Amino acid sequence: MLDKFFSPKSVAIVGASHTPGKVGYVLAENFARGFPGKFFFVNPDPEPIMEHRTYPSVKSIPEPLDMVVIAVKSTLVPKVLKECVDKKVEAVVIVSAGFSETGEEGRKLEEQLKKIINGTKTRVIGPNVVGVFDPHSKLDTVFLPRDRMNRPKEGSIAFITQSGAVGSTIADWLSEEGIGVSKFVSYGNAMDVNESDLLEYLSEDEKTKVIAVYIEGVKATGKRFISTLKKVCKKKPVIFLKSGKTEKGSHAAASHTGSIAGSARVYSTVFRQFGAIEAPDWEELFDFAKAFSMQPATRGDRLLVITNGGGFGVLATDEAERQKLRLDPLTPQAVEKLKKIVHGYASVHNPMDLTADSNASTYKLAFEAAMPKYDGAILITLFQVPTLEESIIETVASLQSHGKPILCCAAGGSFSNRMSQRLEARGVPVYPTPERAVRAFEALSRFGKHQKSA
Amino acid sequence: MLDKFFSPKSVAIVGASHTPGKVGYVLAENFARGFPGKFFFVNPDPEPIMEHRTYPSVKSIPEPLDMVVIAVKSTLVPKVLKECVDKKVEAVVIVSAGFSETGEEGRKLEEQLKKIINGTKTRVIGPNVVGVFDPHSKLDTVFLPRDRMNRPKEGSIAFITQSGAVGSTIADWLSEEGIGVSKFVSYGNAMDVNESDLLEYLSEDEKTKVIAVYIEGVKATGKRFISTLKKVCKKKPVIFLKSGKTEKGSHAAASHTGSIAGSARVYSTVFRQFGAIEAPDWEELFDFAKAFSMQPATRGDRLLVITNGGGFGVLATDEAERQKLRLDPLTPQAVEKLKKIVHGYASVHNPMDLTADSNASTYKLAFEAAMPKYDGAILITLFQVPTLEESIIETVASLQSHGKPILCCAAGGSFSNRMSQRLEARGVPVYPTPERAVRAFEALSRFGKHQKSA
Repeated sequence: MLDKFFSPKSVAIVGASHTPGKVGYVLAENFARGFPGKFFFVNPDPEPIMEHRTYPSVKSIPEPLDMVVIAVKSTLVPKVLKECVDKKVEAVVIVSAGFSETGEEGRKLEEQLKKIINGTKTRVIGPNVVGVFDPHSKLDTVFLPRDRMNRPKEGSIAFITQSGAVGSTIADWLSEEGIGVSKFVSYGNAMDVNESDLLEYLSEDEKTKVIAVYIEGVKATGKRFISTLKKVCKKKPVIFLKSGKTEKGSHAAASHTGSIAGSARVYSTVFRQFGAIEAPDWEELFDFAKAFSMQPATRGDRLLVITNGGGFGVLATDEAERQKLRLDPLTPQAVEKLKKIVHGYASVHNPMDLTADSNASTYKLAFEAAMPKYDGAILITLFQVPTLEESIIETVASLQSHGKPILCCAAGGSFSNRMSQRLEARGVPVYPTPERAVRAFEALSRFGKHQKSA
Repeated sequence: MLDKFFSPKSVAIVGASHTPGKVGYVLAENFARGFPGKFFFVNPDPEPIMEHRTYPSVKSIPEPLDMVVIAVKSTLVPKVLKECVDKKVEAVVIVSAGFSETGEEGRKLEEQLKKIINGTKTRVIGPNVVGVFDPHSKLDTVFLPRDRMNRPKEGSIAFITQSGAVGSTIADWLSEEGIGVSKFVSYGNAMDVNESDLLEYLSEDEKTKVIAVYIEGVKATGKRFISTLKKVCKKKPVIFLKSGKTEKGSHAAASHTGSIAGSARVYSTVFRQFGAIEAPDWEELFDFAKAFSMQPATRGDRLLVITNGGGFGVLATDEAERQKLRLDPLTPQAVEKLKKIVHGYASVHNPMDLTADSNASTYKLAFEAAMPKYDGAILITLFQVPTLEESIIETVASLQSHGKPILCCAAGGSFSNRMSQRLEARGVPVYPTPERAVRAFEALSRFGKHQKSA
């Protein structure tokens, strides 16, 4: 049970600081600005921090603690952790760096920490992490200041990351895109709580619809990881971005989080076999998570593409072919029906090119006439064309009642971005290129297939 | 000579309209809002348009014309074109659709147009195009309204596109990203002026540093296309996004611009052999063009990566390996020098992980100590970390004096986006993912290699 890491009622911040700009200052600010539970700042200096009194140590805090965040020099961490164990704190986040990721000496220090918690009820996330963030409980142990890194709103993507920088960048990006998270965990060196523990926990978490993972190397045993994966992927989509896949990349990973990155092929095979979705790169991790958080998985791989720009239809077709999705032709009935509705230049195929003369109502007619045959649709809605009225937002949103996944593709400048945001606010994910939309659809369909076969 | 298409002194707009929202209204507005030359609106209705008098026909205009833009129903186009020929107009842009892209009848109509200009000095761009745009001369025949599609500023990317929608979307995107173009041409059905004519013309254009092309199928003969490519690629980087590469994609292209898309393999071989850069997808067309417009080509493929986030370094390494770039180790001298400068956790390898404790001055020292050995660098500057001061902008900008290409990678929310825009204003392109930065670097290096071997 890792609940205390996400919804603690009382938290101590060891290393809370008086000095703006310091890690310990940002942490103090995160709590002072609106954490609904109790919190205690630990600092040997009795001068209050943000008008809150300080405590010289964890053990001097006169109340029980659910969680302790440690942000002091690495060599001081063992002593603090010992106090946490003595105080029966169940959740400890060690933000401090300077452990196994730095070489032999750091590795020894980390071993010492492991011994301290061994056989106790104290669980540790870290060391060498950016922190834990839960928008629902308002817990925020991320030490990056909000003017540099925005926090995402409440949502259904759980994001767990071995690399703090990758994590914080994606969290910042998600917030900019207006996409919410259920939980964010940077788990770093994983001296105790590892990716498998988190996967297992998140698979039971009601707020989490999809789990996105950045991983350099698995920290649990291979056996544990596989059995976890098997179980979790039956319940929820899990998307992995595995880095250190090439030989050189794997060396780089070793000096980063001290991971043995392992053979790329082994990882890919395991992911495929147990139904996890592998994202080929950073952007796809984000794209796929967005798709799963907003749309249902598909029941098959028959894709319908409708566009108001022919070139985008061609690019979508190329990518669909590469992804081995089925762009089956329309039924003769649908063709007959549509020929009466759309104007002469339109191309009543799949992709269906409604051309620049189309509007919201053409999209609706086209979708409804063709859809019964397909498992889902990509609607390319290029907003540069003025005939496409703003009511397309409502139209597309309402088409979701058919129960099949719909992804949109639109790109451009300020007007397009505004329209895309409105579509996403109505639950329809929008991708800036046809290729990215198609790859996201393929991810939905891969998961759907695994669920059917599982 | 296609000069009249980009810097005409007098232009007639046939089909200029009184009705807001109509194509002919947007065209009239484009000219009325600030075209520095003369312009004439052609419409049978004598009621002025935006306070400019109208003319009933091209031949009724009492002055010579450099250019005519035709935006009337397809069946009316032959008559108008004939008048242009009679008036010795050298540049005609036919915006109207309804020609070879729509089937047999349209094909015949287009043949008729060809006959009209055959043996004359009248050249035609179109039909079925979004238009021509030149921010330097302020010529704008793009029929999409500015509140839907922003126009990019002055810059050095020439963008030519067979698909109007692809073109207008990318132009809109470029404007949003603050990246300028030298010329923008949607050439559609290419009944006369084709991609090869445009490539040849742009290779001599002083304002154009890089040519980006979206193409479904070549419209010139194969022989002409190859000889043009050979010549042009010696002078300037040319980036192609070729769509209709798969079998289904090629069918979709046929019903879009009437192109025979041809075998993907043939195209790729031709591109490679003659030194053109092929972009695998839409996003890369944009990414590569940005790199070439801002940075010099590399002289080799030895890449240095410096990062303040280890995970991003690993992802960059993986992509560099996939792209067959050389991430050679630092020289022993550089390692020795740097070990004295950077703090203990930093990883003095390539990629060089300066960790979250680095600042602008660490980046400068690292770059200068390591650089002599390399052909260029990717600087991953994650702005979420507060130790990275805003002065990093000046630092990175100044490192360009080394004469080697520098690309940056940064991603995130509002603060990061602001910083990225400032970097780009100083001439350093910024990519949101390490993979995209590495692929753009590879494009620079591919062109550099071709230049050396040519």
